[in-house]
Amino acid sequence: MLSREESERLTRVGPGTPMGNTMRRYWIPALLAWELPEPDCPPVRVKLLGEDLVAFRDTRGQLGLLDEYCPHRRVSLFFGRNEECGLRCVYHGWKFDVAGRCVDMMNEPEELSFKHKISTRAYPMAELGGVIWTYMGPPERQPPLPRFVWTEMPATHRHASKVIQESNWLQGLEGGIDTSHAPILHRVISPSSRRPGFKPTNPFVRGKAPRLVVDLTDYGYQYAGIRPLDEADVYIRTYHFVMPFHQIRPSRTDGDVPTVAGHIWVPMDDENTMVFNWEYSTTDEAFSDEDRLERRLGNGPLDVDQTTFRSRRNRQNNYLLDRNIQRTETFTGIDGVNVQDRAIQESMGRVVDRSREHLGSADKAVIQARRLLLQAVTTVEEGGTPRGINPTYYALRASEGVLPRDANWRETLAPDVPMAEILQTV
Amino acid sequence: MLSREESERLTRVGPGTPMGNTMRRYWIPALLAWELPEPDCPPVRVKLLGEDLVAFRDTRGQLGLLDEYCPHRRVSLFFGRNEECGLRCVYHGWKFDVAGRCVDMMNEPEELSFKHKISTRAYPMAELGGVIWTYMGPPERQPPLPRFVWTEMPATHRHASKVIQESNWLQGLEGGIDTSHAPILHRVISPSSRRPGFKPTNPFVRGKAPRLVVDLTDYGYQYAGIRPLDEADVYIRTYHFVMPFHQIRPSRTDGDVPTVAGHIWVPMDDENTMVFNWEYSTTDEAFSDEDRLERRLGNGPLDVDQTTFRSRRNRQNNYLLDRNIQRTETFTGIDGVNVQDRAIQESMGRVVDRSREHLGSADKAVIQARRLLLQAVTTVEEGGTPRGINPTYYALRASEGVLPRDANWRETLAPDVPMAEILQTV
Amino acid sequence: MLSREESERLTRVGPGTPMGNTMRRYWIPALLAWELPEPDCPPVRVKLLGEDLVAFRDTRGQLGLLDEYCPHRRVSLFFGRNEECGLRCVYHGWKFDVAGRCVDMMNEPEELSFKHKISTRAYPMAELGGVIWTYMGPPERQPPLPRFVWTEMPATHRHASKVIQESNWLQGLEGGIDTSHAPILHRVISPSSRRPGFKPTNPFVRGKAPRLVVDLTDYGYQYAGIRPLDEADVYIRTYHFVMPFHQIRPSRTDGDVPTVAGHIWVPMDDENTMVFNWEYSTTDEAFSDEDRLERRLGNGPLDVDQTTFRSRRNRQNNYLLDRNIQRTETFTGIDGVNVQDRAIQESMGRVVDRSREHLGSADKAVIQARRLLLQAVTTVEEGGTPRGINPTYYALRASEGVLPRDANWRETLAPDVPMAEILQTV
Repeated sequence: MLSREESERLTRVGPGTPMGNTMRRYWIPALLAWELPEPDCPPVRVKLLGEDLVAFRDTRGQLGLLDEYCPHRRVSLFFGRNEECGLRCVYHGWKFDVAGRCVDMMNEPEELSFKHKISTRAYPMAELGGVIWTYMGPPERQPPLPRFVWTEMPATHRHASKVIQESNWLQGLEGGIDTSHAPILHRVISPSSRRPGFKPTNPFVRGKAPRLVVDLTDYGYQYAGIRPLDEADVYIRTYHFVMPFHQIRPSRTDGDVPTVAGHIWVPMDDENTMVFNWEYSTTDEAFSDEDRLERRLGNGPLDVDQTTFRSRRNRQNNYLLDRNIQRTETFTGIDGVNVQDRAIQESMGRVVDRSREHLGSADKAVIQARRLLLQAVTTVEEGGTPRGINPTYYALRASEGVLPRDANWRETLAPDVPMAEILQTV
Repeated sequence: MLSREESERLTRVGPGTPMGNTMRRYWIPALLAWELPEPDCPPVRVKLLGEDLVAFRDTRGQLGLLDEYCPHRRVSLFFGRNEECGLRCVYHGWKFDVAGRCVDMMNEPEELSFKHKISTRAYPMAELGGVIWTYMGPPERQPPLPRFVWTEMPATHRHASKVIQESNWLQGLEGGIDTSHAPILHRVISPSSRRPGFKPTNPFVRGKAPRLVVDLTDYGYQYAGIRPLDEADVYIRTYHFVMPFHQIRPSRTDGDVPTVAGHIWVPMDDENTMVFNWEYSTTDEAFSDEDRLERRLGNGPLDVDQTTFRSRRNRQNNYLLDRNIQRTETFTGIDGVNVQDRAIQESMGRVVDRSREHLGSADKAVIQARRLLLQAVTTVEEGGTPRGINPTYYALRASEGVLPRDANWRETLAPDVPMAEILQTV
Repeated sequence: MLSREESERLTRVGPGTPMGNTMRRYWIPALLAWELPEPDCPPVRVKLLGEDLVAFRDTRGQLGLLDEYCPHRRVSLFFGRNEECGLRCVYHGWKFDVAGRCVDMMNEPEELSFKHKISTRAYPMAELGGVIWTYMGPPERQPPLPRFVWTEMPATHRHASKVIQESNWLQGLEGGIDTSHAPILHRVISPSSRRPGFKPTNPFVRGKAPRLVVDLTDYGYQYAGIRPLDEADVYIRTYHFVMPFHQIRPSRTDGDVPTVAGHIWVPMDDENTMVFNWEYSTTDEAFSDEDRLERRLGNGPLDVDQTTFRSRRNRQNNYLLDRNIQRTETFTGIDGVNVQDRAIQESMGRVVDRSREHLGSADKAVIQARRLLLQAVTTVEEGGTPRGINPTYYALRASEGVLPRDANWRETLAPDVPMAEILQTV
């Protein structure tokens, strides 16, 4: 439970807000790379941290992210022409390069042009892992590129998708670092059902309620959910929380190709979030077209409009909840593991009031994430560098397994984070 | 005409408002009984007095009405599972019984469970007359059940329906206790038209503008609209206003089975109202399926979506107003007597500004209702018991008739309210 | 660039605002005449300067414009009956004549009627040029009728249409008096394209960026955009700005029948504008049905719903922008010259923040219009008469032409405004 003030402090991300300033210290996913497929392709609207922006790829392939509104008369550059190394406003023909410099003014006689005096807000971009990232903070504080393992994989062995969630970003993140809900919300209750989720035979479901162990690190934390299976064994899943909004988890637990996967919850504004979903194969096997449909998660083109990135199952239609399926096949009656997540996270309202919660031991990872985020806000306010900026997270993986009760899970499942890097365990 | 302050005082019903506190002293209709048809059926969202709630019928048939949001992390219990005497949140598996007690926590190891410390807001419910009622006030002030005559009739001889009106509740109530508008708004102007409404031959229409007599009582008031028909006779209709939002009127004046009918205007919030419509046969004749369609009123399944309870004729489509029918057949050109009421009441805006009205003698009943409601608010603020709590309204009926000018209409038409129970006549 | 305060002062038009008071000193277009086609036709809702109104044509053909809400109980008179020289509310039958006087009360016994004490807000109307105008200001200040040249033409030779723009009125006006954008925004880039706009061969496009000359007058201003074509010649277009929201321009530059045309940007409220479009033939040739479709501009019945006056190409569908057409045929990829205007003006947001602009020499006419409007607001505040009230604008025309550089364009193209009437040139 947070105070109302703390809850506001964590959730508001607009320009000038404490968390907004903090988020602007990190690289932020802005688009899937295929949204800007080639030089001089159409510009795309992007909303990030409450700012209206427009992204484009210029004639030489350089990426630009500008204030959506032309500095001349505030017309949207979404309607602009992407031509000859610049984006040109169609109202009076002012043209801007990827750095935001005004390079032409069609409406002014040459001798009266003041283009050299005009520039517009522009943020640097980088393409990495099939995603286009941006950095919206002070230039002198720009951190190293976010070279997560998944971003370094060949395109054949990685996959990324995007979907808009109709809630504040923190509700998404909190679901993502809460292993305790997974075998409940995502449970398949009928052994014979073929619907996606965790089946009764899965150790995730067979195990009892977990004990959580959280190892605080320089990048955020790793944590393990440890579930007793019987007298001898425990089932353990390890996750990472990389500041400020990354989750890394083991995936495909239902017998498919083993992968590592994760989500990134990027605030569009205080009430809407772009969720980036990524996954990579941990074997030599490449992803097939079928894999890329993400049927199980409900994040792919069958489930999400690839123009608007709105989910077809959404709050307006109660996520196509089927009460009969809920009675006989799955815990929720809603198809799609991440559709289930969005359904319950959106049901909390756009920004949940965390002063009315009642938390327990199962919420330990959620509580720790809030603490780290509040610390980061204070650190940034004091002029410091928050966790997750230094590239200590580059090599992180995540895994799961059934181990004897007294086994050292850190050695077996989480060798990427040496004991020396664990600052504190809670 | 009210001051703006009085108008606010009467119309705002959220938690902690003066009228909200007053309404919470009465039994309130929440659902039609068939919306929770059987034990362990799906839960249903209910919005009452600005509160988001969820209703369910448990395994033993007990009715529960809980805060919609789980006290753990504020997820909507609408998505919950209604199973084994409790409603279970699908996020982390917390389960609540009809009294709001937490009876299970799936996500916590048994030794760490704190379920006995957790409960959620729960309101008592009662099924009566095909309607499920709730009481949202202080437990020690819970009044006797609302045993109106219609609630005591056999199901074959009574009927109830529900429709959402897109305005504040008081605009609905004021229309319901305003007999003066009925033969105007609901008039059929062509003798040969078969559209619903009051035909030119009906004494309601043949009569002149009415003189109103209002008898104040312990439960609210009874009133009569007395319309001169000729030198000898008057046409009289008697109505009851039972505090805080019940109307009882004579019905089926167009030659059908005689019935008594009424409406209840239940605030969902300040800007939306659930209208419950009820009717019972005053003869041995039961209602047919055709009767239950309520074609004349426009409140039945042909006119109102039985999932959302939204009217198909609504403000978005101007209630399918047909100007040609308005010119030649009916006063409004809108089909359905209660659709006509909703059309004009919704046209006033969500909450009408009563400081800009100009009232006359025909508004006497409306004026008296406002006075009684303002009195009740003050009474509740002072710790007292407002009118309409004591079950003096149980036996009320309503009727109409053509009488000689000097006849005693109270004896003939309103024998249910003895002179001794009339506190004052205005 | 304006300060935020000046921007607010210019854009807000509700009752009691400085610009609202100023606008109320002028005749304002309210409806197309055919919207009230005959005596006793259905009433029509009209929203003007933030006021909800209802217009009707009574039995004798007189025009009425009343407060939409009946003074009795605030029901919308849109649902009223237009009958026997008055509009009758359907709730209780109160009836009002075109002057706003209550002439009947159906719900009150005759001896209790207080109709002579009741009246409702009513504004005078006048039909002129196929448009119904109203005057909403102090009666003693009512100006002469707005007898623009176009309003005096025979119906066969003039045309008027209406479309709702989803932005503040000033964004529309500013586009209308900004000749510098026209050959950019409305440019056809392919010589062979048949889409509407200015083709590469048009002198409007061939010319260089214009020098603007603004002649301030008693009615507002006339201005010319002077574009060098070559060493010898310039291409000149003259426009008029008639206070507070009229544009007069030369039109049909693409080889059709020569016409003069213009727009009027009438505020419905601060965020929505009714654009009236007019045109008249400057030859003997009458308009054909085809001409009246306004295909080129996108303002006619093929493009605008003639009940709601909403454009079929609108912000919800990105104006059906086609990126391929934008690449190969037209500057915007949007069809319809005025659709292009609305697209970019609506893209600025409902009310653009003018404190964030960067203006240049090409914005001279826009800057002057703002100055005149701010002056008018001050004049009205001080009790004076603003520009554009006196009928000095009656004879104004507009034209264009290719002239030698040293020709006197005022004599050749703008003989309607004698030098003596030019107060100042900027």
